[in-house]
Formats: sequence, structure tokens, C-alpha cells
Amino acid sequence: MSSFLLKTAKNITKNLTSIRKYSSLNASTIEYLSSIVGSSNCSVSEAIRTHHSKDESLHEEAHPDIVVFPEKTEQISKILQFCNKNKIPAIPYGAGSGFEGGINAIKGGVSIDTSKYMNNILEVNVEDFDCWVDSGVTRKQLNNYLKDTGLWFPIDPGADACIGGMCSTSASGTNAVRFGTMRENVLNLECVLADGTVINTAGLKARSRKNVAGYNLTNLMIGSEGTLSVITKVALKLFPQPETILSAVAPFPDVASAVQSTVEIMQSGLAIARIEFLDEKSIQANNIYNKMSLDETPTLFLEFHGSKGTVDQQAETAMEICKENQCKEFNWATDPEERIKLWHARHNSWFAFKSIHPNRKAISTDVCVPISKLPEILVQTKKDIEELNLKTVIVGHVGDGNFHTFISLDPTDKEEMNRYHAYSEKLVRHAIKVEGTCTGEHGIGLGKMKYMEEQFGKSPIETMRIIKRALDPNNILNPGKIF
Amino acid sequence: MSSFLLKTAKNITKNLTSIRKYSSLNASTIEYLSSIVGSSNCSVSEAIRTHHSKDESLHEEAHPDIVVFPEKTEQISKILQFCNKNKIPAIPYGAGSGFEGGINAIKGGVSIDTSKYMNNILEVNVEDFDCWVDSGVTRKQLNNYLKDTGLWFPIDPGADACIGGMCSTSASGTNAVRFGTMRENVLNLECVLADGTVINTAGLKARSRKNVAGYNLTNLMIGSEGTLSVITKVALKLFPQPETILSAVAPFPDVASAVQSTVEIMQSGLAIARIEFLDEKSIQANNIYNKMSLDETPTLFLEFHGSKGTVDQQAETAMEICKENQCKEFNWATDPEERIKLWHARHNSWFAFKSIHPNRKAISTDVCVPISKLPEILVQTKKDIEELNLKTVIVGHVGDGNFHTFISLDPTDKEEMNRYHAYSEKLVRHAIKVEGTCTGEHGIGLGKMKYMEEQFGKSPIETMRIIKRALDPNNILNPGKIF
Repeated sequence: MSSFLLKTAKNITKNLTSIRKYSSLNASTIEYLSSIVGSSNCSVSEAIRTHHSKDESLHEEAHPDIVVFPEKTEQISKILQFCNKNKIPAIPYGAGSGFEGGINAIKGGVSIDTSKYMNNILEVNVEDFDCWVDSGVTRKQLNNYLKDTGLWFPIDPGADACIGGMCSTSASGTNAVRFGTMRENVLNLECVLADGTVINTAGLKARSRKNVAGYNLTNLMIGSEGTLSVITKVALKLFPQPETILSAVAPFPDVASAVQSTVEIMQSGLAIARIEFLDEKSIQANNIYNKMSLDETPTLFLEFHGSKGTVDQQAETAMEICKENQCKEFNWATDPEERIKLWHARHNSWFAFKSIHPNRKAISTDVCVPISKLPEILVQTKKDIEELNLKTVIVGHVGDGNFHTFISLDPTDKEEMNRYHAYSEKLVRHAIKVEGTCTGEHGIGLGKMKYMEEQFGKSPIETMRIIKRALDPNNILNPGKIF
Repeated sequence: MSSFLLKTAKNITKNLTSIRKYSSLNASTIEYLSSIVGSSNCSVSEAIRTHHSKDESLHEEAHPDIVVFPEKTEQISKILQFCNKNKIPAIPYGAGSGFEGGINAIKGGVSIDTSKYMNNILEVNVEDFDCWVDSGVTRKQLNNYLKDTGLWFPIDPGADACIGGMCSTSASGTNAVRFGTMRENVLNLECVLADGTVINTAGLKARSRKNVAGYNLTNLMIGSEGTLSVITKVALKLFPQPETILSAVAPFPDVASAVQSTVEIMQSGLAIARIEFLDEKSIQANNIYNKMSLDETPTLFLEFHGSKGTVDQQAETAMEICKENQCKEFNWATDPEERIKLWHARHNSWFAFKSIHPNRKAISTDVCVPISKLPEILVQTKKDIEELNLKTVIVGHVGDGNFHTFISLDPTDKEEMNRYHAYSEKLVRHAIKVEGTCTGEHGIGLGKMKYMEEQFGKSPIETMRIIKRALDPNNILNPGKIF
């Protein structure tokens, strides 16, 4: 393309983006969609479209033309049939708590918000440790509901995400080191394909623990970020609530010793439930935001689950390892309130960070590496942050080799943005080089597309594209994401 | 199709099957394939083709036209390019230990045997608890190699299967209740697509514990039974060898009480490592075959892993549950030799069963149900076996709700075969009805194709077909399986 044409194309795109502040769908389209979900469950108002135009990330707002709030799967099927026929983009929307622009409607279209009505816990099979939920149910809602059953759903990305959204990025978080990610904890999905076909990925009502009948469509949909289907119902594994929970805070003199302790704890084979790293700046932000008074130094938050005896034994071993690595003191949090406060603080790290940098934007990185590579990459990252003078904290699910850095930015400060881009690219390249990944749990969305080829080479991406084209030939499902 | 045409078609098929005793590939094809792998690694001899014509199942022998023994991925890539261009079927072959006719070459073609050369353990990252192996490595070979590293690979389907074959059916077995199946334990795959393209499913060398970049091609290939790719290399999770292992044998007066104990043990949330059921007839066969003297009554074999304290505590709880359910006595096997003998017997159940029914064929069922449904289906199965007067034993990975019945048959006895078919269909239908699956770990292969629609309905199968057609448009990879 000539540079003139390229410029013109860019201008058109820019204009389209601003035009999209107003719905560009014609009246009959809007009317048809309202006829499916009811006019009160269909909105073209700017406020509602703005709410559905972006997630927690820095990616530019991208408004859908219309937001619909369906009540049931059949309505989503009708919506997709219509979108497919008319080549209108359709973007599944849950809680909007993503970090990579996954729900931003960069090609406009219909945002399908399941959170308003499709939020019922459909069945809990206590004796089988499983449940069926609507995709719009949030993880906190589910755990609240389960409270008196003796069971819980441990996957915990911090935010109160919808189960459907958690499926679409294969979310994980602080408990993954013990319980795995969504990939390991979904037994079956009901989802709607691009042409409106409704399928159950593991069989009509199947929810057995093992099931190898046919292709693993369940795990093809999990992590596909809304580009292959709209997930409507999810069968989840549940777990017995732990008999005893013991948390601990372990402050270290530096990053290296905290991370080395993590590596050794993991290598000892301890069945630790959580092991989270927070650097001194993250602790500082948490102290301010959550009114705590933790030592402002690189710190591990640890948690142990099990019977009293097991938990004590595990904690003892972990403490020994930490102390051998210069841990200053190992502070137990046995009291449930104290423990809840601790993890609440960890979960609020993102908001704590944002609050101490008011009037600025924040973004999170998400690399994951083999655990033996964690010390080198974390120490290098700390050095890079200092050299580039970025406002950054480091937190991480270090037991899995997954960590985040939150960076505070002023998007209008070009020079700072350049420093951020240089930093972020170096970090991702480092992770890929040491046999890790550009994303451990946030997904590709818009933010990581540029790293796909670096991580995979060309062929696997073409394989993914072949699958996408085969299942969504008109490219209506969340277009412009992943590839 | 008219009944005349149908008859003719059947005759043609029959003739084709017998013709296939001799390779139907022309000389230039054979010459070209030898030029890729070398003439000594290429065979059209009847003995070798017969060896590659069937697995452990009852399905009729179906000879490939040629068997090749490649040394490396590049050769498999060239073979598939050639097969794809010339529409010649290609069937991956590992150890031939499958149970559903997955490797039978029902359309002839090229059997690609990875076991001869592609059987190297490529790298073990002790500090990361992972390894890369060629797909032709067997699980026993891997565990032998790992012996001195303090690590092991726990997935254990009984047979000494190849890791590649274990991927293709998402194998599991006795340890799955604790460690999961292949789906949960593969970090990355190198595989060759139908057109010869080589891909790494999780990234070029990626082996981080978590990785959500792009579609989960890894788990699409796992369980696809050789119909989407030929798997050449596998990155596996490894686990620390347990500090203490404690096994126990618990005999019960009847099936119901043994299974009820299993349900209660699982519901107690105990992290049990294995919990296997053997009915009295299976114990009887094992006693003869393995020269043991166990009580010939429905029995649980249990195993606990962990530190000494944890293991004792867990075993104590399990024993209490069993005793409350009329377990006659709880016999400990602490001595490693005794323990090995016990699990060797469990793993040899299939061969023990075959040996007590000489000159007959044997087949295994493989349903899996939610654990609360296990007592009803097992008790019903026992009743059906007696009513239909079938020579059958029941063994099962009951902690996962997965169990097998081995049936001894004379395929020429039409009346007995009819009784078997009636039994098997009733069992599978029962499993699907109680929200289970027709296959927990053996796969669909040839044997379960007829149940796919019953389990899924039409649409998900069409979704699988769309993926198959997109990735293998000429249907060369293991054609005629799954769908």
C-alpha cells in the first residue's frame, strides 16, 4: 500500500473510531436485536456503550454499536445467527476485568453482556464436587453461595471476574499453584458458535471427572478469548473447604533471596496453596491503601491448606527454607480476620498501585517462565525498572513462575511511553528466550498480539487461524483479537 | 443405498480387507518412502504389517500397506507431505497398547512407528520438574531414567505405553485421582500436521507451568487419537518422588460396600494417590496369575503418598471409612517389595484375566460417571453380568468414577457376542444417562464411534468434523476413527 493510501486508511479508521461514539447500526438492526432480548435489554446509549468499550487495560476505548443483555442461551443463539448473516461483530462481555483489551469492540458491533441476567447458579452436586453455573456468575458470588456446602471454587484471579470471562482467558491467580487454572477445572461448557449453534463441549450433560470422547472442545474454547464462541454455561470442579488454613508473611532483604526461597519451596515438593511475591514498592502501596504496617521490603505471602498437622508441618518446612535465605522473620496469620486482611491486600495490589498514582494510567505485564529462570528474570526486571526510571511495582504468582509488573503511565508523555515500551518488550523477549511465555494468565487480547510470532513462529499461528476461519468464517466473534 | 448395493459394497470392503494382506502401494511409492527413511526402515513384510494391524482390542486386524520407522521429525514431515499430496492414509503407531482399535489401519496406508528410533529422553530439567521426550519413549523407560533425579512421571495406564500414544488418547490410569490425566500434565508438544508442517503447540520451546498465549493447541492434539497430527516430542510435568508410600488392601463383603467406601473417601477430601476396585473374580484371576493369596471378595487397593505423618493420618482416615462400610480387615503393605507386587498384580489384571480364559478373546469397557453415581451403576453392572452369564471381571479407577469390565468372548459364538453387545450398550447408555461418558480413558477409536451422537448430540460432532476437515482436508491422518 502506498503511504498516501495508508494515511488515508488510517484517517478513515480514526474517523470510524470517533463515529463509533454513536451507534452506526441502522434502525432495523437495532429493532431486530430488541425484538430478541426486549427493548429494555438493548442499549445504544453512550454511557452504556462506553462502559463496554474497555477493560482494566490502557488500550483505547472502542465502543460497541449496541449492548444487549440476554436472558438465555437461545437469545444469544438468535443474536449470533443474525450477526453472522449480516457480518456484524459480536463481543462477549462479562465483568470487564480483563487486562489485555479483550472486550474492547475495536470493530464495533454488538457487545453481549451476560452479567445482568445470565448469572444463576444452576446446580451444585455436593457429593460430586461439581456445579453448573451461568457464565455471568462471578467467582465471589459462587463462593458465597457455596459457603454452607463445605465446598469452594479456588480459582482466584483477584478481581471478581465472571466465570465465563475466566474461561475465555483461562484465568488463574493466587491459588493456581495448588489447584491449577481454568483449563484444569472446567468439566463441560455450553457455548454458542458463530452461526448460532449451541453445543455442550463434553457431551450433553456430561460432568464426569475424566472424559476422552472426541476432541477436547472444552479446552479449545477455554483461552480462546471470545473468538470461537460465546460461553453460556460452565460445569466446574469444586473442592472441599480446607480444614485448616494458615497464612504467613515473610519479609526478605532483597528480591533475589525472596525468589530463591520460592524456588526452593517449590522444589521441596510442598503442596503449598499460595505463594505470592510483592516487592517493597508494592508493600508500600498496600500499606497506604489498606492501612497496614508491613515491613517495606521484598516479601512473600504464603498459605497452607490441610489438616492441622499437615499445615503445621508444611509451614515449618517453608519457614526453614525462608530463614536459610535471610528471611528476617516469619509472621504467622492464624486469625481468620488477619488472614483475610492479608489476602485482601494482595488482591487489592492493583487498586493500591493505581491509588498512589492518581491521574495516571496503569498497565500490567504478565510473563511466566520456568521456575528456575525466575531469579534471573526478576533481578533483571528490577534493574531495568530502576535504569528506565519507571513507576513500577512487582507482584507475582511466583510458585508458577508467573509475575506481573504494574507500571504507572501518562499516555500523553511520549518519552515515558517509549521507556515503557522498551521495558515491556525487553521483559517479554527475556521470558520467551528462557522458554517462558508472553502471557501466563491475562491472555493475548490486543496487547500481546505482536509477540505471538516471536513465541510460536509462523506455523502454529496459521494453525490457530485455520481453526478460527473454519469455526467463524465471517470473523464475527471478537474480531481483531489474538491474531 | 439398496440392499443389493449395500451387499456389493460390503463384499468389496471384505475383499479390500483381504487384499490388504499384501501391500497395495505401488513400487514407486514404496521407493519414495524408503528414500526418506532408508530402505531398512521401511517394511511391507506381512509379519511387520500384521504387528501394526491391531492393538489390544477385539477389532479386526487391519493392515497398513507399509510400516515406516522414522528417525526424526523431518522425516515424518516429508512422509506426511507425500501422503497428503497422494491422499494416502498415515497412522501414528507407538506401543500398540490401545483398547479401541485406534491404530488399526482400516483404510490401509502408512503406519508411522516412532518406537524404534524416536525414543530418546531429550532433556530433564530437574529444577523445573519437567522434561522433553521423543514421543516413542515409554512411561517405564522415562521413570527408569528419572530414578536418580528424585522425580517421576506418575501417569500410569498400566501398559508400558509410549508417551505419544498416551497423549493421543489422553491416557490416565491408577494415579489420575491424584495427578490428573495427560491433559493436565503436558506443557508443550511438537507435532506434524497433515500437510507436513511442524508446530510446537505452546510456543517454540515454551515449558512454563502456565501459558495462555493463543488457542490451546496442546489440548486439541491430546485426545485427538492421531487424527489431527503425528506427535513427535512432548514436554511433560514431573513430580517429586513421594517421601513415603503406603499401600493397603481392603476386602469387602460386596461391591456396594467397597464402592460406598470409595465415595466417602473421595468426599472426605483425602489426597489419596490411588484407589482401585477389583471384584472377586478379578482377585481370583490375579491370585492364579500372580501367585497371590488375597481374599476372593470385592476389594479396594489404596495408596497414600507424602511425608510419614501425612500418610499415616490419611491411611487412618481411609481405614475408618472402610471399616464403617464392613471392610473385613485393612491390610497394610509397607514393605516396598510387597507394595510393588500388589500394584504389579493390579496392572496385570488384563493379562491375568486373559490367561484364565485361554483361546478366547477379551475386550474392555471404559465408562466414567460422576462419583455419586458409581454405586448404582456398579451394582447394576454386576447384576447384568450375572443375568447375561458373561465371563467378566470388574476393575476400576473408582476414585475418578472410571471403571472397566473385561469380558472374555469367543467371536465365532454369535449368541455370546449378542449378549456382550446388549450388555455393553446398556452399560454405556446407563453411564451417559447419569451424566458420565462412554470413555474415561481408552478413547473413541473404532469401538465407541456409535455412542458419540448419543453423548454429544449432532452439533458438537459436526464442530469436531469442521476442525478435522480444516486441519486435514484430505482426511489422511488416521482416517475412519472417532467420527
